[in-house]
Amino acid sequence: MTEQRTWGGRFEGGMEQLTADYTAGMDRDFWAHDIAGSVAHARMLGKQGIIPADEAGAIVAGLAHVLQDFREGRVTWRPELEDIHTHVEVLLREKIGDAAGRLHTARSRNDQVALLNRMVVREACDIASDSLRALILVLCDLGERHAADPMPGYTHVQRAQPVTLGHHLLAYAEMLARDRERFADCRKRANVLPLGSGALAGAPYPLDREMVAAELGFEGISRNSMDATADRDFVAEFASACAITQVHISRFAEDIVLWASAEYGFVTLPDGFATGSSIMPQKKNADVAELARGRAGRAIGELVGILTTMKGLPMSYDRDLQEDKAYILGASNVVLPTLRIFTAMVPALAFNLERMRQVAGLSFSLATDIADYLVQRGMPFREAHGVVGGLVREAESRHCELNELPFEAYAAASPLFAREVLKITVDSALAARDIPGGTAPRQVRLAAAALRAAVG
Amino acid sequence: MTEQRTWGGRFEGGMEQLTADYTAGMDRDFWAHDIAGSVAHARMLGKQGIIPADEAGAIVAGLAHVLQDFREGRVTWRPELEDIHTHVEVLLREKIGDAAGRLHTARSRNDQVALLNRMVVREACDIASDSLRALILVLCDLGERHAADPMPGYTHVQRAQPVTLGHHLLAYAEMLARDRERFADCRKRANVLPLGSGALAGAPYPLDREMVAAELGFEGISRNSMDATADRDFVAEFASACAITQVHISRFAEDIVLWASAEYGFVTLPDGFATGSSIMPQKKNADVAELARGRAGRAIGELVGILTTMKGLPMSYDRDLQEDKAYILGASNVVLPTLRIFTAMVPALAFNLERMRQVAGLSFSLATDIADYLVQRGMPFREAHGVVGGLVREAESRHCELNELPFEAYAAASPLFAREVLKITVDSALAARDIPGGTAPRQVRLAAAALRAAVG
Amino acid sequence: MTEQRTWGGRFEGGMEQLTADYTAGMDRDFWAHDIAGSVAHARMLGKQGIIPADEAGAIVAGLAHVLQDFREGRVTWRPELEDIHTHVEVLLREKIGDAAGRLHTARSRNDQVALLNRMVVREACDIASDSLRALILVLCDLGERHAADPMPGYTHVQRAQPVTLGHHLLAYAEMLARDRERFADCRKRANVLPLGSGALAGAPYPLDREMVAAELGFEGISRNSMDATADRDFVAEFASACAITQVHISRFAEDIVLWASAEYGFVTLPDGFATGSSIMPQKKNADVAELARGRAGRAIGELVGILTTMKGLPMSYDRDLQEDKAYILGASNVVLPTLRIFTAMVPALAFNLERMRQVAGLSFSLATDIADYLVQRGMPFREAHGVVGGLVREAESRHCELNELPFEAYAAASPLFAREVLKITVDSALAARDIPGGTAPRQVRLAAAALRAAVG
Amino acid sequence: MTEQRTWGGRFEGGMEQLTADYTAGMDRDFWAHDIAGSVAHARMLGKQGIIPADEAGAIVAGLAHVLQDFREGRVTWRPELEDIHTHVEVLLREKIGDAAGRLHTARSRNDQVALLNRMVVREACDIASDSLRALILVLCDLGERHAADPMPGYTHVQRAQPVTLGHHLLAYAEMLARDRERFADCRKRANVLPLGSGALAGAPYPLDREMVAAELGFEGISRNSMDATADRDFVAEFASACAITQVHISRFAEDIVLWASAEYGFVTLPDGFATGSSIMPQKKNADVAELARGRAGRAIGELVGILTTMKGLPMSYDRDLQEDKAYILGASNVVLPTLRIFTAMVPALAFNLERMRQVAGLSFSLATDIADYLVQRGMPFREAHGVVGGLVREAESRHCELNELPFEAYAAASPLFAREVLKITVDSALAARDIPGGTAPRQVRLAAAALRAAVG
Repeated sequence: MTEQRTWGGRFEGGMEQLTADYTAGMDRDFWAHDIAGSVAHARMLGKQGIIPADEAGAIVAGLAHVLQDFREGRVTWRPELEDIHTHVEVLLREKIGDAAGRLHTARSRNDQVALLNRMVVREACDIASDSLRALILVLCDLGERHAADPMPGYTHVQRAQPVTLGHHLLAYAEMLARDRERFADCRKRANVLPLGSGALAGAPYPLDREMVAAELGFEGISRNSMDATADRDFVAEFASACAITQVHISRFAEDIVLWASAEYGFVTLPDGFATGSSIMPQKKNADVAELARGRAGRAIGELVGILTTMKGLPMSYDRDLQEDKAYILGASNVVLPTLRIFTAMVPALAFNLERMRQVAGLSFSLATDIADYLVQRGMPFREAHGVVGGLVREAESRHCELNELPFEAYAAASPLFAREVLKITVDSALAARDIPGGTAPRQVRLAAAALRAAVG
Repeated sequence: MTEQRTWGGRFEGGMEQLTADYTAGMDRDFWAHDIAGSVAHARMLGKQGIIPADEAGAIVAGLAHVLQDFREGRVTWRPELEDIHTHVEVLLREKIGDAAGRLHTARSRNDQVALLNRMVVREACDIASDSLRALILVLCDLGERHAADPMPGYTHVQRAQPVTLGHHLLAYAEMLARDRERFADCRKRANVLPLGSGALAGAPYPLDREMVAAELGFEGISRNSMDATADRDFVAEFASACAITQVHISRFAEDIVLWASAEYGFVTLPDGFATGSSIMPQKKNADVAELARGRAGRAIGELVGILTTMKGLPMSYDRDLQEDKAYILGASNVVLPTLRIFTAMVPALAFNLERMRQVAGLSFSLATDIADYLVQRGMPFREAHGVVGGLVREAESRHCELNELPFEAYAAASPLFAREVLKITVDSALAARDIPGGTAPRQVRLAAAALRAAVG
Repeated sequence: MTEQRTWGGRFEGGMEQLTADYTAGMDRDFWAHDIAGSVAHARMLGKQGIIPADEAGAIVAGLAHVLQDFREGRVTWRPELEDIHTHVEVLLREKIGDAAGRLHTARSRNDQVALLNRMVVREACDIASDSLRALILVLCDLGERHAADPMPGYTHVQRAQPVTLGHHLLAYAEMLARDRERFADCRKRANVLPLGSGALAGAPYPLDREMVAAELGFEGISRNSMDATADRDFVAEFASACAITQVHISRFAEDIVLWASAEYGFVTLPDGFATGSSIMPQKKNADVAELARGRAGRAIGELVGILTTMKGLPMSYDRDLQEDKAYILGASNVVLPTLRIFTAMVPALAFNLERMRQVAGLSFSLATDIADYLVQRGMPFREAHGVVGGLVREAESRHCELNELPFEAYAAASPLFAREVLKITVDSALAARDIPGGTAPRQVRLAAAALRAAVG
Repeated sequence: MTEQRTWGGRFEGGMEQLTADYTAGMDRDFWAHDIAGSVAHARMLGKQGIIPADEAGAIVAGLAHVLQDFREGRVTWRPELEDIHTHVEVLLREKIGDAAGRLHTARSRNDQVALLNRMVVREACDIASDSLRALILVLCDLGERHAADPMPGYTHVQRAQPVTLGHHLLAYAEMLARDRERFADCRKRANVLPLGSGALAGAPYPLDREMVAAELGFEGISRNSMDATADRDFVAEFASACAITQVHISRFAEDIVLWASAEYGFVTLPDGFATGSSIMPQKKNADVAELARGRAGRAIGELVGILTTMKGLPMSYDRDLQEDKAYILGASNVVLPTLRIFTAMVPALAFNLERMRQVAGLSFSLATDIADYLVQRGMPFREAHGVVGGLVREAESRHCELNELPFEAYAAASPLFAREVLKITVDSALAARDIPGGTAPRQVRLAAAALRAAVG
């Protein structure tokens, strides 16, 4: 016997209530968009003489009042009115009477819904873009600040070669910059006016669709009414951009979790973004990073959901598509808060720069540079590899690092070595990678500046 | 400029508020389970002498009061208390004072959470099982009622051979019966007590875990504390059972959508489960079926989400796993309402039996039976196919069905034909498939009875 | 006891063989890209004086021979050489000796692999773009040819309003045109040279990365070496574009399956793209369409795979990423053959235009137009709906269509009706939707022309 | 211009070739199952007198020859014969002539395919079960061997409390044991004979389905012919079991990757299961573990694929379902080789037990035990937490561990402390968790024995 109501409680009513619950949408927060769309439609109907100009004016004025009511919290949601569209219609009728009925001339629920969804996706893209820009700029700042701070660079979670912390952080900034482009591309395709498509076949009225598009900020109008009412590819593309972004963040999160471990000791988490333990005061769990990592699963799930929902649907509009808004919100509600909290958390990370610098030189991480030293003196690469491999084995047997070997060991390995080989350090290794994209501090600063310029 | 608050509104507070919002769980409805777990734990602690018996008694009594408060709606959710566990703890302290602190002896948040999740999944399995049983029984009723009502059987959405409507409906019942088994199997694996696992290593107290398991209805206790606190495979298995179930329903839904079309004309939807059009009174859109079909996307997405969330997590508990409850609820909230509304809707479908019977005999759907007629008279199957193929072509050229051809056409095609071949009808074809699993009315009734017996 | 070797046979060797099998890649077909990358790298190394000019020349000449060997089928795959990169290196060494070792100066496997993958995705985008263009043009042709051929337009699989077949087909063309844009956007982001990134930190040589980029047709160079070697977002974006495309095709496929059914009777499948039955010659199963529909599952699965593989990976390169090529190929091998076969199949569909025209006028599909007739004479929309709803009920009770009602019925319903209302036909309804995006034949032709111009 | 043939090369033929390529299946390796099914069918047909006994005998004998030809590699695949079923039929005809035609009496391609798929899934379940058992036993061995070897137990990738290595490894064994149960449950539901279902409606012959089931090792017969030919839930369930298994392995893999890092230093990878670097001999990348982790993405993708493929398909068989075998093989080919290579690799891991023991006592990992010490002396838990928290802060300020504090510090913190508190060590902490499921060495050995008994 259970008592909770999470899944049991919704089904108390009769058949109609069952259906009402089952078919309920989730658009109630989007009154501003819905009203804006109706205002533009009404103005155009009036201008085109499709409805009398005075009635158009009354509708526009009435909608302004309805908008005000929503803004000021005076509207109570009535479940029996199902969705935001009906609420606005009923509220308008309460304001202006039967003239409200003219608003629906040359418009169907199908193109009205498509309009709203496109406005919602467009806005979500804008918020995502702004949020990404904020986090990218944070990373650019950190990239510049730590352009010369060495840390071990890893491949396969094994120390490989030194990089700078700035370089590492800017790698994520580059990923996020592409994510931002993806949202821009998605916005471009979503930002096309579907209104005028009717239920599926277009409207038999002399609409000025370009006028409505211009008023609502759309860059163009849809070219096919069936496509415009039946497709939701812009939702799938949006969910895809969200999923890729969250996957990028999940990788950054994994790094943060590792860096915050006792084993790495690279970062101390800010108190505000970690949870502690009442026993172990040194223990700060990177909960925010962990949740961000885990929610990549949610983001991918939302993408799967909308794609699978659309799969195999015959033309044109089917009710399955109502679920599109759940996916827009589901994906947004993963990515947008994640970007926001990372933008706050990342600058608050306390990097243990000394520890990172120290570890950067361990584990023979300069071996490649010593091989390159030989190559630059004329030895073929494969041969140089062999020579340095021998030196590493010797260092291992002496339990020391390469730069702790006596020069004699180098001289015995190859006559091309001069004493200057001992001057190869983490810093010289970093400085040597002075080509575009490389980890040399100069390049890191250039990359940060270029990226900053790119995101405006 | 937008005004809605859907994604913008949550981030007004400072850093702590950001983190609190980002890390908030979704367990608030599960107070009954959490309290039941604590009662069992306290009783055991008292019985084992780990805490004083009188304090154990006070805790149990206090929890009863807390439970009552929840039941009667007297508890206000306090976001700063984060989750249900803290709420219960704080409420208990308000009832009985410091003795409340003894409750947490030999228990950590990690095994407490694992306990709650297993109780939630177990209960969801039970509801799913009951809901499936109800729908299966509805289908058994219909299967028996329509055991002899012919309809065209389709492969590739092409008419193939006659079946009975009862047989068709029972096919779904069989699928759902396996779904029910899957929930039972999932329950079996979920129904293992994790309490006593501590944070990850087990508890250094002489707990009687079997006693707690018995009190809470668990069939066994977990054998490894790290596994018990770190794994969520029972959630993935539950989500998988939900996804498969919803996919089955999506197929049934597709059939209903097609049957309700003008082209098929097989079913009239009940008013309570369809939406009409203010213009076209004959138009009833199968919205419930469409949404059920579309929500298979959601169910699959939830499964992907939990699997991907778990992927690559190191041992043992990581905060990513907090999201498990979102997937339990997400999957449940697709499947359970769907089963419920189908159980109400399916018996209300008005089948147009005459139309189905009429179409069942069209499109040469008896051709296979005529070939089998020849085979039963000794002709090898491949040869029989050829003979009947010729007859079909002849019927096509005459624009008639096979049973409208004159007997002479049969006789010319093969000497094995006798006049009785013309007696092959939809009903005789149905009756001929009188082996277990076949569509003969007798078999359909037997299958319904067997299935009814199987689900109890 | 089983005998097949599908999953049993690969594990006969010892430990090394197990590992070799488990870690084997799937790049063997991409020799042309790998060699092109090496040629460009060698030329640049020579020009920059990083390796001697004569050795650079020898390498380029040797690679030309290796390329020729691949082209002419003279290369035998040697599993012990693991991947295409090693094959090319070994073959080059066989041609030119030790100078081959210079080729790997300033290059690591990590940036070499990233280069190859970007070339592969770039090419796949190009093939997809060309394939989409071909199918879009086929649909434009058909759109124009059938710009005035009526058919029922459906919502919820219910007849709603007449559209033209051309309009319906062009809806798919519009979707595919956006898919093509997505591949172009993906190509843009993939088309950035990663070479010069080394293993992760950049190369300590004065490389001219812009020169290599220009030679290989890249539009830019990567700005961060860790990002360039560790991220595979371009693969996920490619898989996403493939998945959305295949989902679009799955909807077209669903329409074809329905249209080919006896119930719809809209299309006769070309023999070459259907499977028949040896008994029922009229039966043509739309197997190609069904498989295309089903393979949307595969395409979505590939997308999930690459996203989940990347989730939570720490920086920078991890071996998990080797699987990226499997996803590129997996997604391509769904979408590209599907586009190709649809381009061949769609023009071969035999539309039953008479049947489509006849059905277009049934099921009261002109009711909306009659309501619009009243609206255009001044009646508010809601009132007009009510009037026509009454007429539909009357027609239903008389078992006739709306245009079969006597004029008196109209006159009784509203004084605004004149006899011309009886002249509302499928064709007039189509012609009335003469705004951009509408189904009026004139608009359909304009849309086809606009789309044709857009895809070049 | 490209030259590779990966995606371009398949489409050289005409329309028929396009279709043949597009519709080709992937069943060619399953000749043994197909022949076994046919042998059982033929015997039953003969026994029931549906075909002459001598012809049944000829068929059985002929099939034995065909089987021999396959076994001995004498069969050449002929693409024009499409699938394994046609190959067997044609080969049989070549052996015994027209009597081969009798084999197809009372059987259709649809139930024949369903039979084959169930046999394939059943076998894959058996291999998975055996493979899991082998890996579980390896882990039981290691669990016992390392039952008392301490290591740090982690939550949130932070050191939390000591556990034993054996306990940690057995946690994975427990997960895998549940995976094995899932394969058994899947097998149970798959192991039902579909033969006799015909194309969809059952066969009009007096078949003895139970006889065929018994001969082929099926535990029962399907109860509904439409369900039996149209559903593939057993494939989805199989893919789900595979995905959960691979996700479990991905977690183990993550641990191995971390343990093999310089930061952890817990394990040295065996040479045969790692890739090295020609420069850094100490560098061993855990490639096998990384690929196993990454391939969880593939496994989840396969599951999504089959579920999405089935979504929304109308009854009964649709060609989309042909893809089921690709998912069976795709999922198998991830999981089975992974289990095999882990079974070989895990026992070859060289654990650095000293390092693990040393780290187990760091980071205040015994703080919980000291709190429990107070609790056992009567202090309420919350108060004990506070006391120990103060001690930890004091230790931190002195840069020492808790057991390095002087006893005076303890005494000052609480009068309940006696000198024995300093005897709390990693080993005593482990030993204290001596309840079922706990990490006490005794319990670890019991758990290993119990698990070993459970898997037989």
